[in-house]
Amino acid sequence: MADYNTDIAIIGAGPVGLFAVFEAGMLKMRTTVIDTLDFIGGQCTALYPEKPIYDIPAHPAVTGQELIDQLKKQADPFKPDYLLGQQVTGFNKTNDGITLTTSTGNLVNCKAAIIAAGAGAFGPNKPPVANLEQFEEAGCVQYMVGNRQEFAGKNIVIAGGGDSAVDWANSLSELANKVYLVHRRPKFRAMPESVEKLHKLADSGKVELVIPYQLDSLQGDNGKLQNVIVKTLDGEQKTLPADVFLPFFGLSMELGPIAEWGLSLDKKHIAVEPSTMATNITGVYAVGDIATYQNKLKLILTGFSEVATACHQIYDIVYPDTPLHFEYSTTKSLP
Amino acid sequence: MADYNTDIAIIGAGPVGLFAVFEAGMLKMRTTVIDTLDFIGGQCTALYPEKPIYDIPAHPAVTGQELIDQLKKQADPFKPDYLLGQQVTGFNKTNDGITLTTSTGNLVNCKAAIIAAGAGAFGPNKPPVANLEQFEEAGCVQYMVGNRQEFAGKNIVIAGGGDSAVDWANSLSELANKVYLVHRRPKFRAMPESVEKLHKLADSGKVELVIPYQLDSLQGDNGKLQNVIVKTLDGEQKTLPADVFLPFFGLSMELGPIAEWGLSLDKKHIAVEPSTMATNITGVYAVGDIATYQNKLKLILTGFSEVATACHQIYDIVYPDTPLHFEYSTTKSLP
Repeated sequence: MADYNTDIAIIGAGPVGLFAVFEAGMLKMRTTVIDTLDFIGGQCTALYPEKPIYDIPAHPAVTGQELIDQLKKQADPFKPDYLLGQQVTGFNKTNDGITLTTSTGNLVNCKAAIIAAGAGAFGPNKPPVANLEQFEEAGCVQYMVGNRQEFAGKNIVIAGGGDSAVDWANSLSELANKVYLVHRRPKFRAMPESVEKLHKLADSGKVELVIPYQLDSLQGDNGKLQNVIVKTLDGEQKTLPADVFLPFFGLSMELGPIAEWGLSLDKKHIAVEPSTMATNITGVYAVGDIATYQNKLKLILTGFSEVATACHQIYDIVYPDTPLHFEYSTTKSLP
Repeated sequence: MADYNTDIAIIGAGPVGLFAVFEAGMLKMRTTVIDTLDFIGGQCTALYPEKPIYDIPAHPAVTGQELIDQLKKQADPFKPDYLLGQQVTGFNKTNDGITLTTSTGNLVNCKAAIIAAGAGAFGPNKPPVANLEQFEEAGCVQYMVGNRQEFAGKNIVIAGGGDSAVDWANSLSELANKVYLVHRRPKFRAMPESVEKLHKLADSGKVELVIPYQLDSLQGDNGKLQNVIVKTLDGEQKTLPADVFLPFFGLSMELGPIAEWGLSLDKKHIAVEPSTMATNITGVYAVGDIATYQNKLKLILTGFSEVATACHQIYDIVYPDTPLHFEYSTTKSLP
């Protein structure tokens, strides 16, 4: 528990939140970044760290992790505070700004807040099986891959048919003892190159495709997982020996406590005025996938531009008596 | 002289124009890019190829030339036509779109046009000295540095106090016989790191600072330059032996023939509706520095976002019967 005093609180440490640190910094504003995940990068790091993204300008192909590494490096000179593994729970207007409270009891006093929360304080969709919680607590059921190395030599059951399931099956097969990929139908909704790689790994025996099967139950003692039981629609059953189970069933989009601040919402997104990125609450701005307006494109590159707009607006709040002189980045020094 | 049939004509091959090729390509639209310069890259390549830019997202520092190289590489899979060294002179609405005519007589038939002309079909501010034209024709007076190598071993006089003057003095000092930098006052309007480097080069004798002097006249025969004559305000004169003279006195912003299309203008910029980037002429869009709307930021990253918006709008013109299904770049294949 600590007090943080800053110019801008940035809610969300995804690509757009990280770029907000840089943009604010170039305008001489300090930032504190808060994220529910205990690492920076948001979905890029959590869900597709190794998948190439093609539409970041001037990056013909960059993986989610590389993108975040570059944005972090760009933000570093401005020395933001990162408050990770905690959710923003409280919001209070004060005489000279806003005070946010986080779930771990930190207070962030700021002049303005930028919500860059992507799909929201998102949580994984969990499989409907008994005793899930005891396996989660022991780390035998995980919804994101943090440190790849901890999977070395293990028996891993992955479930799902999207990018995360396919990418992690491919990636973890390099170091696991055995990887099973359970999916209810033969077709995967993932990048063609990744699906092709998966089938090659299956042919060589490094990944076993368990298709068409669905999750039935988990077996084990005291949180220690032993088997994942899967079944076909006809009831045919298979027992997969497993040290760890990784269900990739997508994310549930939830705004979380932010939904109670009184923000104008539009289909679970925050409505903003696109020429300023201001919400209906003075001092609160929203950018990136969580912000909506007419013809909004949910592209990372659009979020970058929105952040630049928001920071230029906030400059007038932080420095009400100092007009902003426009300068190109090439003529400014970095700290 | 040839006929080009394309979906989108992009006027301007600067960073934003190049990214338009990629964005259009991802939406299955073909492009033809037209630029008055005879190389791609616009101001980035022409004016600050070696200067680092700091505010391109996920590029902590990238030079103008590197930025253009990356954007070119990203655009390459979509095989655009580049019509360089020619200006768009004619604009005609046709039954099924627009036909543009260029100054070299090419015709470009397109469904829509994106104007990404930056500061316009810009031209250099020229010094008011006699016989300028004969020296220009012989290549002894140049306003941009194309091929650095052609300056090897030469005596070079550079005039000006901005980024271009300082950067090229630094850069060309590596291979020239002698570089003089003429400026009317001691202070330079350039990146502090570059100015520092300049002073070090001056201390070591690799560059001679000629301050406070102004250009007086050029001496030479048949276009072959011999001396640049400079004077102080008090009339004190100096003769600088010179093979080539590079005046960097900035650019004049001129829209050129585009100004006669009937576009709504606002202080020499093209007024657009920011949610679509549409101009007042159906089928014509404007993006980047040349486009203006409320709270417009003249940033390259803003131009990237504007281009994405324009291309999504144009998709409906090119494919009126096929609704656009939004896909992330990571799930699409590149050509």
